[in-house]
Amino acid sequence: MMRARVGIINVTGYIGVDLARILLRHPQVEVICVTGRSAAGERLSDVFPHLQSSDLVIQAELNTAVDVVFSAMPHKASAEICAPLVAQGLKVIDVSADFRLKSRDTYESWYGVTHPCPELLDSAVYGLPELYREQIRGARLVANPGCYPTGALLALAPALSSGIVEGDIIVDSKSGVSGAGRSLTLATHYAECNESVMAYSVGGHRHLPEMLQECRALSERVSDLLFVPHLIPMSRGILSVCYARLSAEWAGVGGDVGPRIIEAYRRFYQDSPFVDVVDRPPATKHVWGSNYCHVFPQFDVRTGRLLVISATDNLVKGGAGEAVQNMNLMLGFDETSGLEMLPVFP
Amino acid sequence: MMRARVGIINVTGYIGVDLARILLRHPQVEVICVTGRSAAGERLSDVFPHLQSSDLVIQAELNTAVDVVFSAMPHKASAEICAPLVAQGLKVIDVSADFRLKSRDTYESWYGVTHPCPELLDSAVYGLPELYREQIRGARLVANPGCYPTGALLALAPALSSGIVEGDIIVDSKSGVSGAGRSLTLATHYAECNESVMAYSVGGHRHLPEMLQECRALSERVSDLLFVPHLIPMSRGILSVCYARLSAEWAGVGGDVGPRIIEAYRRFYQDSPFVDVVDRPPATKHVWGSNYCHVFPQFDVRTGRLLVISATDNLVKGGAGEAVQNMNLMLGFDETSGLEMLPVFP
Amino acid sequence: MMRARVGIINVTGYIGVDLARILLRHPQVEVICVTGRSAAGERLSDVFPHLQSSDLVIQAELNTAVDVVFSAMPHKASAEICAPLVAQGLKVIDVSADFRLKSRDTYESWYGVTHPCPELLDSAVYGLPELYREQIRGARLVANPGCYPTGALLALAPALSSGIVEGDIIVDSKSGVSGAGRSLTLATHYAECNESVMAYSVGGHRHLPEMLQECRALSERVSDLLFVPHLIPMSRGILSVCYARLSAEWAGVGGDVGPRIIEAYRRFYQDSPFVDVVDRPPATKHVWGSNYCHVFPQFDVRTGRLLVISATDNLVKGGAGEAVQNMNLMLGFDETSGLEMLPVFP
Amino acid sequence: MMRARVGIINVTGYIGVDLARILLRHPQVEVICVTGRSAAGERLSDVFPHLQSSDLVIQAELNTAVDVVFSAMPHKASAEICAPLVAQGLKVIDVSADFRLKSRDTYESWYGVTHPCPELLDSAVYGLPELYREQIRGARLVANPGCYPTGALLALAPALSSGIVEGDIIVDSKSGVSGAGRSLTLATHYAECNESVMAYSVGGHRHLPEMLQECRALSERVSDLLFVPHLIPMSRGILSVCYARLSAEWAGVGGDVGPRIIEAYRRFYQDSPFVDVVDRPPATKHVWGSNYCHVFPQFDVRTGRLLVISATDNLVKGGAGEAVQNMNLMLGFDETSGLEMLPVFP
Repeated sequence: MMRARVGIINVTGYIGVDLARILLRHPQVEVICVTGRSAAGERLSDVFPHLQSSDLVIQAELNTAVDVVFSAMPHKASAEICAPLVAQGLKVIDVSADFRLKSRDTYESWYGVTHPCPELLDSAVYGLPELYREQIRGARLVANPGCYPTGALLALAPALSSGIVEGDIIVDSKSGVSGAGRSLTLATHYAECNESVMAYSVGGHRHLPEMLQECRALSERVSDLLFVPHLIPMSRGILSVCYARLSAEWAGVGGDVGPRIIEAYRRFYQDSPFVDVVDRPPATKHVWGSNYCHVFPQFDVRTGRLLVISATDNLVKGGAGEAVQNMNLMLGFDETSGLEMLPVFP
Repeated sequence: MMRARVGIINVTGYIGVDLARILLRHPQVEVICVTGRSAAGERLSDVFPHLQSSDLVIQAELNTAVDVVFSAMPHKASAEICAPLVAQGLKVIDVSADFRLKSRDTYESWYGVTHPCPELLDSAVYGLPELYREQIRGARLVANPGCYPTGALLALAPALSSGIVEGDIIVDSKSGVSGAGRSLTLATHYAECNESVMAYSVGGHRHLPEMLQECRALSERVSDLLFVPHLIPMSRGILSVCYARLSAEWAGVGGDVGPRIIEAYRRFYQDSPFVDVVDRPPATKHVWGSNYCHVFPQFDVRTGRLLVISATDNLVKGGAGEAVQNMNLMLGFDETSGLEMLPVFP
Repeated sequence: MMRARVGIINVTGYIGVDLARILLRHPQVEVICVTGRSAAGERLSDVFPHLQSSDLVIQAELNTAVDVVFSAMPHKASAEICAPLVAQGLKVIDVSADFRLKSRDTYESWYGVTHPCPELLDSAVYGLPELYREQIRGARLVANPGCYPTGALLALAPALSSGIVEGDIIVDSKSGVSGAGRSLTLATHYAECNESVMAYSVGGHRHLPEMLQECRALSERVSDLLFVPHLIPMSRGILSVCYARLSAEWAGVGGDVGPRIIEAYRRFYQDSPFVDVVDRPPATKHVWGSNYCHVFPQFDVRTGRLLVISATDNLVKGGAGEAVQNMNLMLGFDETSGLEMLPVFP
Repeated sequence: MMRARVGIINVTGYIGVDLARILLRHPQVEVICVTGRSAAGERLSDVFPHLQSSDLVIQAELNTAVDVVFSAMPHKASAEICAPLVAQGLKVIDVSADFRLKSRDTYESWYGVTHPCPELLDSAVYGLPELYREQIRGARLVANPGCYPTGALLALAPALSSGIVEGDIIVDSKSGVSGAGRSLTLATHYAECNESVMAYSVGGHRHLPEMLQECRALSERVSDLLFVPHLIPMSRGILSVCYARLSAEWAGVGGDVGPRIIEAYRRFYQDSPFVDVVDRPPATKHVWGSNYCHVFPQFDVRTGRLLVISATDNLVKGGAGEAVQNMNLMLGFDETSGLEMLPVFP
């Protein structure tokens, strides 16, 4: 069997290097090229000793003799580098934020930059396979979702698409520190964030418009969304707790609608190999290192609210794993190919 | 100066031993007796090597020749042990839940036990000094608040008492593992809770009725409260994020009411030495090991909600420190006596 | 291709469940049966939510219609359960300590129990593939090494077998908390071991005689061994630092013998797919979740000592992964089959 | 009572800010001035929210109208700033390495810089109060010891000064991440050092010559010293395990010399309020946040070695607390003044 030839742009960030970890063991893929400006010329295994077994040398520029490219560049730079690759006919998966928002204005206002290639926004597919599986199969440019939106949307999608909830939604998310990337900051300096928890970006996080866009695509009855992310002293994992109100018709049913809601959730995800609707509150450790997402819906009889909790590994589902899942769909592979690894516990 | 003579019942739990840490250095106090059934006869410094400098031996039973008693027994057992001490005329601070809820029915339904001495519920004072300072001064029996209610109420009290918010409230709290106590469980086994975050008691936590009782005492316009606690991989600290809606009159003001809200918060706490209204989202590490509470109110213009974040050390403010603060008030000491230690950072 | 049928005895401990994680994805194996007394009758995925995708139900007793059995029982109980399985002709890999020590007396004195089946000690093979690859291929009963001996022996073996060092050896090891198992203890209670490091078993750890037996098998010039293990606030990983003196002939060479030592190390491990001789001090995170071992030898010119550091994941290499590596050899599979997963970083 | 007026140079590092935490609560001291170039003009409480209660503004330059100055500058810069202050007659405590080594050559070879004021080396006193209490009382310039030397020397001093051990010594130390300072590096980036342990500076750490100088001052029979430090995923704490051989005369005694060794240790520290000779292996958590050091000597009968373990909080004893202890001695205060806080556990 011919293996697909893939390249990774900017392998030196956490999503980039987790792409390498997964793709180096993907049975249908050969990693041809990995790039990274600052580390160009160094062996991948010297920069990342856990990849000891790889002989790859980090390149300054992409070898374009590949079938698929993953770009893990920062936003704006990513669009600039992806546009010509798409034009060349390569399949491109961009893990930056550049092609996630359909509205150029929203993008430019939240990211504070001019979009380098707004003409690609229409054809780019939002790469959440559980929502856009068919479109991804045919896509040439996939915008890999943000880590927070992945977890929040997987928690909310069944409720939104089935009309179970309406009105405003609160998403309170807790993320491991790797989500803040590999760039050095005081906030991610060990002694400052260990043994501590804090909320951040409380005035508005860039993943908010992305969540809102997709929530509204699922249901017109979403009035607004408040999103508060937190930094948790752990390396990987996002737990999102979503608070929403039952819609008038579901509230009108009376009694405990809990079981019906769970049933709707199970039905929604019956063909999604990476989402498990679980019957106890999930822990991020239950999906650690894997592409799985655990979703737990709970109807709170006392307040009439629906509470949905999701757990993901921010660097895999909502990161490198999701990107590979998108690649699998784009190349006609089995959706789970190369992603079968089970979570590492404890 | 005569020192007050104090006893600690059940010194072997985390609140108990943190009471010992604080009281052993309190300038106006002498620790006469510490008890603990399973460790009776052992030296305190053998059970807790960080208290190397103490000569105390753990007793099976309390020496009642004391002025003040702290009970850190589990609920029900605590009321049983406290009732005769109160009758004897000792000042008693109970850190269990037994005297927090004014309604015997609510207590019995949430805790699943018969209250041993419901006749004491009326005279017991809820020991949140920032709300009940004067009553505590004259109290003989103080019910030390739960760790979650302390943080949540300090976050919400100014908004509730000033009529800033109304309707239903969501409290999403993140607690360090010491909050779960010293009893061994799989959920607090290192390898299970490290590198993981999870929500728990999502069907209803026992601190909910306590929060609700006090919120409603502050404002009749609270319709309901949804409380979701989380376990965070750290030893100490609680961060609570409270979500509430502006009341009609405050919403009607128009414009950015943020500064007016902050002003109301500062005014509310101007005479409370342990509460700081801060101007950036607090981290639990900023209060680690101390009796301080940082409160951060933020008005979210986009959704019209008020977001209030509080950070405490669950074993100090909301635990042993708050109990000592109550003792200081009951004995006419300076409120901060023995509690001046600054947070340990990093 | 026929898959080998395997059973796991006592899947509910950490080695047991990591065996399940690995074997459930092993391409040449089918997990037929997992046992665990206390959890018998429960679904594996209920006890361990990270194994959501498995349909296995935990059994009280082993289904012996299997080709290979892994026993993760505690010592003594393991030998009792393994002996009849060996007699039945099954291939058995015991991860307990029961068959590691060749001397019954040493076993009985260190473990304080009578050995249930000393007659099996001679034929049992010590399952460190890097030392006993050929014997393991033909073995019916393999004694999987302890976690500490695996790391220490991989660090020392090349130096011992090449006569590079002699005299007494010090092994100072640092282990993640999962090494202490899943049984609840105060020492592994999160709040007690987080943000702390301590040495333990300083009077003599049970892995000492195992290390000594194998060191002496490699070189008669080992006079004695001092082993001090430590508990580190992390879930997985062992870092062992071994201090030894150069032998007279190697010391006599003069100059910097460092490069020659490194060369000897590389040669020793050239056919061992899981051991990498690295050129910078390894971190346990570099092998996290994988069967790899990183070994770093350094000659200290100033003191004339050889310092060798090794890093492993205690639950994989030195645990479940090593057991599967042994199974692969016993069944004639490729040594790396089912163990190709790369370390998860960060 | 007149309070001593103190200044802290470079309050923005971890030792600097822990000096502020301790001195702001010291009953005999007034903090007049704190400096820090990059943060000059900012309020101390804005840079360090845990010091909310302080009104100090960070200055660019020291106000020299003080009695005592603490310099927490990096090496070389510290000597440059301290020399004129000493000349002015101020009492100076330097927490950098500049005045620790008596030999200018050793300093210049290990630190790779020219010493700015070698003429001060003779009169500077090595600030380990347990060894140099009297000299410190009369000193004008005290060189505060390094964090590793503090722990290692407190572990070894009784054995060395009593002739219990001889020959070469190995010190294997494990440090929390705060020991690496507040400057941002990949090695201290949360996601890189969490859930990992590694040795570093294995070719020779700068604290080695300092340990060697003081060990040899205690005993001429120390032949050499091998020191290997490790980075541990925790914020604070150093555990040092020291391995040494019994001297001929102590080895000749025969039998278990353990109790005699412990007795010698207790005698050595009988007048040292911050050192406890403990009878079980200490954990760093037992001294967390305090100026205490726990020392545990253990004679290993099997190998004839003495093993001594010490636990400290690297930022207090071996940092800011030790510096304040030195100040207390220099100013004729009680040695424990302002340092009575007990360790925070858990």
